[in-house]
Amino acid sequence: MDLEAYFLKTLQASGITWGLGDDGVLLPPFKRAVIALDIFAQNVHFKPEWLGFERIGYKAMVVNISDMIAMNATPTHALLGVSLDRHMDKSAIRALVAGFKRACEEFKIRIVGGDTTVGDRLHLSITMLGRARKLLERKGARLGDLIAHTGTLGQSYKALQTLLRGGKVSPKNKFITPYLKHARFITGARQFLHAGLDISDGLLSECNRLSAINRLAFKLHKPRTRAYKSGEEYEMLFCFAPKDYLAMSRRARAHRVRLSVVGRVCRGRSRYRALVWHTA
Amino acid sequence: MDLEAYFLKTLQASGITWGLGDDGVLLPPFKRAVIALDIFAQNVHFKPEWLGFERIGYKAMVVNISDMIAMNATPTHALLGVSLDRHMDKSAIRALVAGFKRACEEFKIRIVGGDTTVGDRLHLSITMLGRARKLLERKGARLGDLIAHTGTLGQSYKALQTLLRGGKVSPKNKFITPYLKHARFITGARQFLHAGLDISDGLLSECNRLSAINRLAFKLHKPRTRAYKSGEEYEMLFCFAPKDYLAMSRRARAHRVRLSVVGRVCRGRSRYRALVWHTA
Repeated sequence: MDLEAYFLKTLQASGITWGLGDDGVLLPPFKRAVIALDIFAQNVHFKPEWLGFERIGYKAMVVNISDMIAMNATPTHALLGVSLDRHMDKSAIRALVAGFKRACEEFKIRIVGGDTTVGDRLHLSITMLGRARKLLERKGARLGDLIAHTGTLGQSYKALQTLLRGGKVSPKNKFITPYLKHARFITGARQFLHAGLDISDGLLSECNRLSAINRLAFKLHKPRTRAYKSGEEYEMLFCFAPKDYLAMSRRARAHRVRLSVVGRVCRGRSRYRALVWHTA
Repeated sequence: MDLEAYFLKTLQASGITWGLGDDGVLLPPFKRAVIALDIFAQNVHFKPEWLGFERIGYKAMVVNISDMIAMNATPTHALLGVSLDRHMDKSAIRALVAGFKRACEEFKIRIVGGDTTVGDRLHLSITMLGRARKLLERKGARLGDLIAHTGTLGQSYKALQTLLRGGKVSPKNKFITPYLKHARFITGARQFLHAGLDISDGLLSECNRLSAINRLAFKLHKPRTRAYKSGEEYEMLFCFAPKDYLAMSRRARAHRVRLSVVGRVCRGRSRYRALVWHTA
């Protein structure tokens, strides 16, 4: 049984939720505030020896910042839910905080609260708040749209395979040091984008999500591409009208972002066989 | 070494935080929005067999709602960070959601987002958003203020001792089924309150906190009272001017809240020997 799926189904059936479709949500009572929460947990998303504590702190923040950028929001404040592993020493804690700090300084974020406990695993759950300009959501795809993604995909999958085999991965690999280079591009291209999200569970998985929420097929030209299974890529997946292809290409070039058109929005439903990405 | 304390010290020294003194924070860019995050984790705050999953879901929400009420804010939205235990079955998940639902309905809260993973422990981190009327903070105590708390204290301590010895506790005990009866009283009495917080780690612990943040002593008449060590009480601790004692008593009676004056704010610093409450 897929516990996660069952939990979400039960939660949605309970009638106490509102707008769970996107990574974040725009809160109507609080003008232009977008909020999102992401968990980054030992033995689910990482093993400490893979990343080291500085990069764990940094990546935990980036996972959340990516959600904000994917919605065309600017992250501003964070709350940290930190369950420390009681075997961590002072230098591990300093490294963890240094990682938080690197991300906070790079993206101009303030930590404004949270909670700390001590247990037997490092478990980070970060709530990110941001301000929305013109929100980009998962819903909004139109029949005939082009499907495209930023950057290159596949690095994280390769790195994870190597690490699981006990091998070593370059610290420059995206799985170890994720980067988010497309924030300004998304804002600049927002007027053309109909729907979008960040690739956290792999392109195939995200296409399934977009398909379900938009009730349209997200037909890929080469659905068997191995890189499409790769999660934690933190590139953007979105769709836009074919007539805007030239304008999109120009903006991508201007922001030094690689843009790849990989499919088309059609009638029907897509159900690609995707990986369950959490496999640390 | 107290890992939690060291983490907080390092975090504060990093220069990336803002206003970490209270349980929640009023976010200036988002008008009247208050936000707080609390962790409720297996083997730290509870064992599943103590509470059952419905009460775990309920209590995890109440812990957070208490933070809001303590700041004189009305909780409105929640984000759930849920790490499920892979050994949970469907009925456990339904019970957990039923507990969330009970709290959401009782306090009129909507769940608007979050993240779910599966690991080897149930670990809940909930972010609560609320609207502030006139915010009540930890800072603001004045020399000569009376120190008072709502309700009765000690039940949770007794229950925890019994459970740790393998005994049974009535489901009506506050540790099993916490209740928050003072929300309207706090709002009604807000004009008289100088500073306050909810008693989550025991009255002595909270007095130490208020003392540190206000740079004043929180002198208790009977500091050796055993009930003052009891955490997870979710009653309110606050201070107000002696001249307002009558008005406070009247409001307490009107809202059927028990009000106990237990000490006085003096010059100096208080450092009571408190329990570290997380002992599940």
